[in-house]
Amino acid sequence: MAYQALNFTEKLSLLGEQWSPRVIAEMNDYQFKVVKIKGDFIWHDHEDTDETFIVLEGNVRIDFRDGHVDLRQGEMFVVPKGIEHKPFAEDEAKLLLIEPRGVLNTGHEGGERTATNDVWI
Amino acid sequence: MAYQALNFTEKLSLLGEQWSPRVIAEMNDYQFKVVKIKGDFIWHDHEDTDETFIVLEGNVRIDFRDGHVDLRQGEMFVVPKGIEHKPFAEDEAKLLLIEPRGVLNTGHEGGERTATNDVWI
Repeated sequence: MAYQALNFTEKLSLLGEQWSPRVIAEMNDYQFKVVKIKGDFIWHDHEDTDETFIVLEGNVRIDFRDGHVDLRQGEMFVVPKGIEHKPFAEDEAKLLLIEPRGVLNTGHEGGERTATNDVWI
Repeated sequence: MAYQALNFTEKLSLLGEQWSPRVIAEMNDYQFKVVKIKGDFIWHDHEDTDETFIVLEGNVRIDFRDGHVDLRQGEMFVVPKGIEHKPFAEDEAKLLLIEPRGVLNTGHEGGERTATNDVWI
């Protein structure tokens, strides 16, 4: 039997609106999500977990209260739990996020930028 | 303060021998490891955890007792816990592995192919 690989380009092509992460795989109780982003997000943190950003296409900046990190395609960064951060992309960028199942994109901030969680593509 | 992204190409350039995963980052109690592989590995499984393979360069085949999956650059696969598998690469390939801290490359099989664990680059 031939099992099926997950292809990032193919999964990214299925994405709809920006800032709406979609689940593509699970590893134990963690989820892999793809997302398109452009512009500014809101300040938030995840008080119970680290969060991994891997850039699949484009350029991303993550602002912290005391600095920032610039990420290009083929780069990753693990945002430590409890650290406030605000992702930003001048032009549309595409990311792979890795975090435990159940983590909301806005942490505990809520509000209109909160995406529906646990939607698979 | 400018935080530093992790660049896969840069980390891959620091790798020495094949089949020796090196840790580049941690997310909670999980580790991200880069590894170069060529040829056949041994059959093994990880009885307590899933294991994620992301292909950074080249082509990889993972054999299972009942089939296989072919992976190219930009593709991933999550090997379920307890499932015997055997990675293979005809030409040298470069991978990102994600799994809990403490997982050995040979599972519980042991033997000469077991790499020293938890070495960072």
